[in-house]
Amino acid sequence: MDERVIISREPLNAETRLELQDGLITPAGRHYVRSHFPFPNPPEHIVISGSVRTARSVSFAELRALPARSALVTLECAGNGRSFLRPPAPGEQWGLGAVSTAEWTGVPLHRLLETYGLSGAVVEILFRGADSGTPPDVGSRIAFERSLPLSRALADDVLIAYAMNGAPIPREHGAPVRLVVPTWYGMASVKWLAEIVALEMPFRGFYQTDRYVSGATPLRAMKPRAVIVAPLEAVRAGAVTGVRGYAWSGQGAITRVELSTDGGASWHDAQLDPPAAPAAWRQWHREWTPSAGAFELVARATDATGEVQGLENRRDPLGYANNAAQPVRVDAR
Amino acid sequence: MDERVIISREPLNAETRLELQDGLITPAGRHYVRSHFPFPNPPEHIVISGSVRTARSVSFAELRALPARSALVTLECAGNGRSFLRPPAPGEQWGLGAVSTAEWTGVPLHRLLETYGLSGAVVEILFRGADSGTPPDVGSRIAFERSLPLSRALADDVLIAYAMNGAPIPREHGAPVRLVVPTWYGMASVKWLAEIVALEMPFRGFYQTDRYVSGATPLRAMKPRAVIVAPLEAVRAGAVTGVRGYAWSGQGAITRVELSTDGGASWHDAQLDPPAAPAAWRQWHREWTPSAGAFELVARATDATGEVQGLENRRDPLGYANNAAQPVRVDAR
Repeated sequence: MDERVIISREPLNAETRLELQDGLITPAGRHYVRSHFPFPNPPEHIVISGSVRTARSVSFAELRALPARSALVTLECAGNGRSFLRPPAPGEQWGLGAVSTAEWTGVPLHRLLETYGLSGAVVEILFRGADSGTPPDVGSRIAFERSLPLSRALADDVLIAYAMNGAPIPREHGAPVRLVVPTWYGMASVKWLAEIVALEMPFRGFYQTDRYVSGATPLRAMKPRAVIVAPLEAVRAGAVTGVRGYAWSGQGAITRVELSTDGGASWHDAQLDPPAAPAAWRQWHREWTPSAGAFELVARATDATGEVQGLENRRDPLGYANNAAQPVRVDAR
Repeated sequence: MDERVIISREPLNAETRLELQDGLITPAGRHYVRSHFPFPNPPEHIVISGSVRTARSVSFAELRALPARSALVTLECAGNGRSFLRPPAPGEQWGLGAVSTAEWTGVPLHRLLETYGLSGAVVEILFRGADSGTPPDVGSRIAFERSLPLSRALADDVLIAYAMNGAPIPREHGAPVRLVVPTWYGMASVKWLAEIVALEMPFRGFYQTDRYVSGATPLRAMKPRAVIVAPLEAVRAGAVTGVRGYAWSGQGAITRVELSTDGGASWHDAQLDPPAAPAAWRQWHREWTPSAGAFELVARATDATGEVQGLENRRDPLGYANNAAQPVRVDAR
């Protein structure tokens, strides 16, 4: 039995169960899964080509011989929260569980690219997964592929990862090797990584310009969001209840989480746990002693850019980045 | 099949396979296990007694309602490295794998004790596991129990943990709830936690005063140690080889790791990864291009107290805290 909530079986799209989340790390078997096509056969090496001095392929043994780096990274699907839109937006109907945190281990991409000598004319790096299929809107077979601007690709935090939570990456998470781009929505973290291409022109593929855009704006950093993981149902009236959850933003550190127990009429600061890692969500909590009655709990996050998470669902044509705070109805009896 | 190296089956004592370690986190199924007695039935609550205002028992549901904290913690058995002593010292014959790192989630102990009102005369807090048996040197049935000085017990980092790497604690690691005392050798992190007793006199039990002492000195903080995890066998002559490993100390942050490829005749600084968490090991690496021949690799760590890991095995009557650097023989062909 999958410990996740299945959104679609083929290709597999599945949410984590936030109510089971303890601590920062999501076990691999509960980490959300987003896939566009059936799982491919695992690539046997990564081909590096384009405007590089020497095009060639890199074996995983070679990759593992390079100095490794590990990071706790919260990944969130850009469609997380889409199912709250009325009328519905097209796409997978994610609730709030298309977000998870894992420790990813691998080689910083810039370490790998340094070896190959990028041409000075390179503006983007393209990443191609081994997964492919025929989206109805395209009508021909394409791979899942996405590019990063050169400066983002060369930043120290971008990993060519081969381990997840200390173990080899499971198939559904991109085995044997995937890209991990912390702070950006998950579409950038290409799974089943098969090819890396240095480009002298911006990439214009389907998943770059027709999907994962909000109007004409490409989606990049995750917007601030707080979620409540407990309580999600009835509580005992008069008893101290710990309201707890997680908050994250790819735009900057979380600076504040506020909790309302009256549907947003009044707000109180929640206590934030110390940050554990720059790209990982933070835990927060607040004690609450409800009298008997019905309550609407809402949490909202603020990040270091000053952006406060909104309360109204964000209407985007493709249903992306709807980071609106979602109320939780709790009865105290 | 156990992914660990079994040292003894009953009670289970098993090492992690350091050669499989990627990133900071050791998966629960590979985390080293130290047990003194057969696994007990899981306790159903924790009894808090002794010099407290109200003795009572705490259910796990109550525990989970309190604000949680998570931390990446490297635990090491005080007997790690014992098997290198000649003649052998009594006790489990650990190689170097009685060390692992996990994310532990739970309630800071002081948050729990605050609720119960400690008497001003309390000097130590005693932790009793549900596991018990009859050690030959004792001759009667005792539980595994250990105390902490009050100041250590109340420090913010000490957790009553109920989750490991984001999932419920597996049986062999102390389900459902264990103590986690970061920076100290693992004997302090009592598993299968059943009782907490506030004491007005220092505790004098077997595992406090007859074991886990070095002469008359109780073992506490882990001594500095670096281990090599790759390469552990033959390498290709003339090829760049990444030598990598982990380093930790409970006495203070790791400030330096040095690598020798000639059995300690000359030393070179290894590159330390940024620290991920105060009580977790750090990864280090150094590139090395060997000519053909036989090499003796040795790594040694220095911590913030200035202590440099020794090269000679540390002779302790019970074989504890032998943190001597152990050479790795590597042939380049």
